[in-house]
Amino acid sequence: MNSFGNIYRLTSFGESHGPAIGGIIDGVPAGFTIDMDALQHEMSRRRPGQSNITTPRQENDMVEILSGVYDGVTTGTPIGFIIKNSDHHSSDYEEMRHNYRPSHADFTYDAKYGIRDYRGGGRASARETAVRMAAGALAKQILQAQGINVWAYTSSIGNIDVPEDYNHYNSQQAEQSMVRCPDSATSALMEKAINEVKNMGDTVGGEVTCVISGCPKGLGEPVFGKLQAALAAAMMSINAAKSFEYGMGREGCRHRGSEMIDCMRSIDGNISFTSNHSGGIQGGITNGEEIYMRVGFKPVATLMQELDTVNDKAENTSIKARGRHDACVVPRAVPVVEAMASMVILDYLLLNRTSRF
Amino acid sequence: MNSFGNIYRLTSFGESHGPAIGGIIDGVPAGFTIDMDALQHEMSRRRPGQSNITTPRQENDMVEILSGVYDGVTTGTPIGFIIKNSDHHSSDYEEMRHNYRPSHADFTYDAKYGIRDYRGGGRASARETAVRMAAGALAKQILQAQGINVWAYTSSIGNIDVPEDYNHYNSQQAEQSMVRCPDSATSALMEKAINEVKNMGDTVGGEVTCVISGCPKGLGEPVFGKLQAALAAAMMSINAAKSFEYGMGREGCRHRGSEMIDCMRSIDGNISFTSNHSGGIQGGITNGEEIYMRVGFKPVATLMQELDTVNDKAENTSIKARGRHDACVVPRAVPVVEAMASMVILDYLLLNRTSRF
Amino acid sequence: MNSFGNIYRLTSFGESHGPAIGGIIDGVPAGFTIDMDALQHEMSRRRPGQSNITTPRQENDMVEILSGVYDGVTTGTPIGFIIKNSDHHSSDYEEMRHNYRPSHADFTYDAKYGIRDYRGGGRASARETAVRMAAGALAKQILQAQGINVWAYTSSIGNIDVPEDYNHYNSQQAEQSMVRCPDSATSALMEKAINEVKNMGDTVGGEVTCVISGCPKGLGEPVFGKLQAALAAAMMSINAAKSFEYGMGREGCRHRGSEMIDCMRSIDGNISFTSNHSGGIQGGITNGEEIYMRVGFKPVATLMQELDTVNDKAENTSIKARGRHDACVVPRAVPVVEAMASMVILDYLLLNRTSRF
Amino acid sequence: MNSFGNIYRLTSFGESHGPAIGGIIDGVPAGFTIDMDALQHEMSRRRPGQSNITTPRQENDMVEILSGVYDGVTTGTPIGFIIKNSDHHSSDYEEMRHNYRPSHADFTYDAKYGIRDYRGGGRASARETAVRMAAGALAKQILQAQGINVWAYTSSIGNIDVPEDYNHYNSQQAEQSMVRCPDSATSALMEKAINEVKNMGDTVGGEVTCVISGCPKGLGEPVFGKLQAALAAAMMSINAAKSFEYGMGREGCRHRGSEMIDCMRSIDGNISFTSNHSGGIQGGITNGEEIYMRVGFKPVATLMQELDTVNDKAENTSIKARGRHDACVVPRAVPVVEAMASMVILDYLLLNRTSRF
Repeated sequence: MNSFGNIYRLTSFGESHGPAIGGIIDGVPAGFTIDMDALQHEMSRRRPGQSNITTPRQENDMVEILSGVYDGVTTGTPIGFIIKNSDHHSSDYEEMRHNYRPSHADFTYDAKYGIRDYRGGGRASARETAVRMAAGALAKQILQAQGINVWAYTSSIGNIDVPEDYNHYNSQQAEQSMVRCPDSATSALMEKAINEVKNMGDTVGGEVTCVISGCPKGLGEPVFGKLQAALAAAMMSINAAKSFEYGMGREGCRHRGSEMIDCMRSIDGNISFTSNHSGGIQGGITNGEEIYMRVGFKPVATLMQELDTVNDKAENTSIKARGRHDACVVPRAVPVVEAMASMVILDYLLLNRTSRF
Repeated sequence: MNSFGNIYRLTSFGESHGPAIGGIIDGVPAGFTIDMDALQHEMSRRRPGQSNITTPRQENDMVEILSGVYDGVTTGTPIGFIIKNSDHHSSDYEEMRHNYRPSHADFTYDAKYGIRDYRGGGRASARETAVRMAAGALAKQILQAQGINVWAYTSSIGNIDVPEDYNHYNSQQAEQSMVRCPDSATSALMEKAINEVKNMGDTVGGEVTCVISGCPKGLGEPVFGKLQAALAAAMMSINAAKSFEYGMGREGCRHRGSEMIDCMRSIDGNISFTSNHSGGIQGGITNGEEIYMRVGFKPVATLMQELDTVNDKAENTSIKARGRHDACVVPRAVPVVEAMASMVILDYLLLNRTSRF
Repeated sequence: MNSFGNIYRLTSFGESHGPAIGGIIDGVPAGFTIDMDALQHEMSRRRPGQSNITTPRQENDMVEILSGVYDGVTTGTPIGFIIKNSDHHSSDYEEMRHNYRPSHADFTYDAKYGIRDYRGGGRASARETAVRMAAGALAKQILQAQGINVWAYTSSIGNIDVPEDYNHYNSQQAEQSMVRCPDSATSALMEKAINEVKNMGDTVGGEVTCVISGCPKGLGEPVFGKLQAALAAAMMSINAAKSFEYGMGREGCRHRGSEMIDCMRSIDGNISFTSNHSGGIQGGITNGEEIYMRVGFKPVATLMQELDTVNDKAENTSIKARGRHDACVVPRAVPVVEAMASMVILDYLLLNRTSRF
Repeated sequence: MNSFGNIYRLTSFGESHGPAIGGIIDGVPAGFTIDMDALQHEMSRRRPGQSNITTPRQENDMVEILSGVYDGVTTGTPIGFIIKNSDHHSSDYEEMRHNYRPSHADFTYDAKYGIRDYRGGGRASARETAVRMAAGALAKQILQAQGINVWAYTSSIGNIDVPEDYNHYNSQQAEQSMVRCPDSATSALMEKAINEVKNMGDTVGGEVTCVISGCPKGLGEPVFGKLQAALAAAMMSINAAKSFEYGMGREGCRHRGSEMIDCMRSIDGNISFTSNHSGGIQGGITNGEEIYMRVGFKPVATLMQELDTVNDKAENTSIKARGRHDACVVPRAVPVVEAMASMVILDYLLLNRTSRF
């Protein structure tokens, strides 16, 4: 259950404060020249310590590839890689050894396994998403080489939303913003809001919108393997994700069919859709239009405030976070959402090679 | 990709207008006495023709079990079953042979496979959900015998929402309502709204809320197998589903951490939570509180209106639905949501037996 | 665990004396025109009652396809099928309700599940191989259309062996023989030997050799997915199989490297091997030479003799088979071996489509 | 396809001459205290350079565990580990860059992927089995704690066979022998034979017998998941394996049913078998008797002789191995066979926890 994907398949390992985290990517097609600089750049997008609004924990997040690549080219054999954990402050976490941080996984891991590595949240730490970044960044490169682009942006922080739909923005705009919001005025408001909650020792949630363009028609495996089911599983497996929608999503469910239907037209024999409320997927299979989806992330539960909790002897106590934590994880979730989406699309692209005689 | 689950695993087959649909349930624990009446009752909850607001297509949806059960008791071997397709009006669908219904899967199936069984929507028909009902109804029974209850209700139709949270309602209230809304006043408004759109040849979407109570602590497989990821995949694989949220969901993502955190208290050594914004899952693992989630279903695209479309020669044409169709699928989606949730919970209950030495 | 294959994937259900057995074939490429007569002919090759040396139980073994095929052409959706159990003599098996047949699965099923359908051996009956035949016969057809031929023959019965290697025989010779032995003199000896043990109420084992020709280079997934590992799992999952070898097999392990090595030569730029001791597979991947393998089947344990055994109360008793049983299953295992081999090769052919960028 | 197992699941990576090989073990039950010394001892049993009859290549084969263990106890999260490749002589392999070693995987990897890491055989090198050793040694420890013992020995080298059946020998006897043959006189003959072929620049094959005792009744998943099918796939995935047999195996297939049947007796209510020709498995499920199997390994194809071959331009050439190679891999295959058997049994032990309500 630490594996993801069918053909292009990541298996992940690692705890926050162990010597390293890492993974194995199986099913990488042979013959692709990896751009390691681009891959490392993707890693840096998720990395903490990027700005004054993210945790100052410093991690190089250098991906060391141990196999599966020869002279820079994928060989078709599994790519094993590690990312060293370099910046430990385990003492920051000593209080967590016996006390459960409320709304964290401390209690549930103990309930399941009877034992946990409490340091830094152990396996439940968002540090694990660095592993997804490595596999997702490679998938993203392979997709780009096929003309498929995956990008995402911050579409809301708290009650602050971007004013326009996805098709008014692009990746460059998002990356120029500290919070990865492509609308500069909204970006400024979001930064301000995050700093406010940070100063109060509080946190705030938000949403990420992801867009996939250039995706060929016909991807998706009907019934249980619908493309949206795979994307939903991918997104809901990210730490702190609480909601998933694609196309017009939940809002579209409040409308009438006549308002939501995407009619079709043929112009010079080329079929296109007169609207894209469906979000590029019909019956679980892509129709050639842009895929777009929204993922909601809760405000993280690591507050700089005293909170009621219990310890592992079921005694009442209280706990207050120390150490380095994000007041809002949404900007750093943006590349993770891209990584997960990229893995799904590449996996389905490979799966689709088997669909016809 | 027509299989769902890890241990308790359904594999499904069948088209809308073939001789039968059916499935194989693998991983059913031996020694459970099936209540076939209760199972058949669940089938009838999804069945069309239940009321004047659902399609009048008459299907018995009788589940014929062909294996895996001896003297009414599960033997541990796979349960094969078929559900005959009894009420064909294939001629209603003749127009669909070459013309793509917009916002349906006709075009995408052709794009993927180069061939499709167009009759009644073929494999993409919601008729396939009857197979999920059979496997889900069995899972629901097995869970009930372990004190776990799975139930769902209609929480919105169009812009009409139930006024209270999930913990104000129960299954009995929902089942008394034609639209499966547990609040009687809201139910009446919903029925009225559905009839209005029906009379206009239009359709309307809505949401289903699902509640799981009695679920033990410790279920869920961290990282990619988080319980919410499995539930999301389950729900987003249902026809017409466009959104998934659990706990406080998307709304919770607009709040601050201090508002969303679930603190813990110990009373006489029993640990409980002072709130349940998390929706019973933390770090992908259950914490013993009630699990609740919301699934949005789009307004179905089968309108009794003339719509622009193209045919399989990429020529412009138009299409208008005939035959028997729901103006709102949400009430019939309620038992399907329960079925999928039940399969996930049972699967994870079995998986969890392997988590400790 | 009742599924087999990665892409081309059979899930099977059914007990010997239930209403039907059947399966679902997922991953069938769209656009293949099925030859139902050829498929049904394959079914008849496994069917009991073919001759005086096989069990006289009469089964039509008519495959009823319920989905996945439209106008005779595969649509890419799963093929569900059933095979009715028509010829029950459950009373023949009444003695088996409480008494364990020695060297059968009666005792082990009870040990595992605490319950079993004892009639006709239930799930452990070789009747289940009819389901494999259906899926394997379809795979065989698809392979033939790609120039790949899978065939098998009886290479030994008891101590009687065919005198020559696989490359001296062909399928036509084997099919002309009652025991599917391609050497007519040996075939006569084998028939005689089977009749002798049959007259003594005894049984005899033997071996099947399977040959795959026309298989392209490059099939096989290194390490755990080596082609020989998949073939071994396929063969050892057949009832009564006790041994698997490929290429020079066990005999080759008694020789020196210099005797077993397959050197390579290039003639006009075409690479070929000067011998084929490897059996067409090197490092788990095909090299373009013929694949050949041997599968040993034990003498079945259903003897017309009084045997010591115990019952389900752990009391000593004895049992003597009645009803209709084969004195030697090897001739009927021949098409089952072909079916399993065909499924593996087709699955790997589809998997291999994903190996390169 | 670089993963093995269902619940207890190893995913492997690594090439012979990369910086490291390694793996991830998923599904390890929480709460087991690992004996790292015992694990490392198992590693040393497979390691080259153990004696004058194995390759003098020196590898520490030190397993570095990176996750999944806290204070020496398994936490239920995946165990990531690496084994550094310390002793490279890549120049020994320069000749292999373009020339295909006959009967090796060089040609087939190129045929499949169009690219390969030729150094030391790359992914196809038997070095990969060190990864299996680590995961298998942990499985073996967990099994031992449950009273299940897995051990193996060399039962033949060339034409030299041990004189007695498996039940005359034990693990201690085997480990005292340089060739892991439990019969000391036979061991001496085998050593002599290996040295002879070594001096001729030749190699020789042989067989390993593996015995599993203390295995509970009821393990095994009928039909495709029969225990012998899983064991066969496990064994045939080991480099150089050519044959698999269990119980009386191929020899038993030459006998009559009355000679091979295992009758049952009850003594004071305890059921036992009067013989164990079946090898502890009936209908794919264990019956409580000892499981035994034989695996044949071909003579390795790395000869110190000039051999005809072709290069990657399809030109004729010749090749002669240099460097350090085993004249007989069978003694070093013994612990690998144990490792694979241990993983299968532990996996099925965990799977079996889900078989009953």
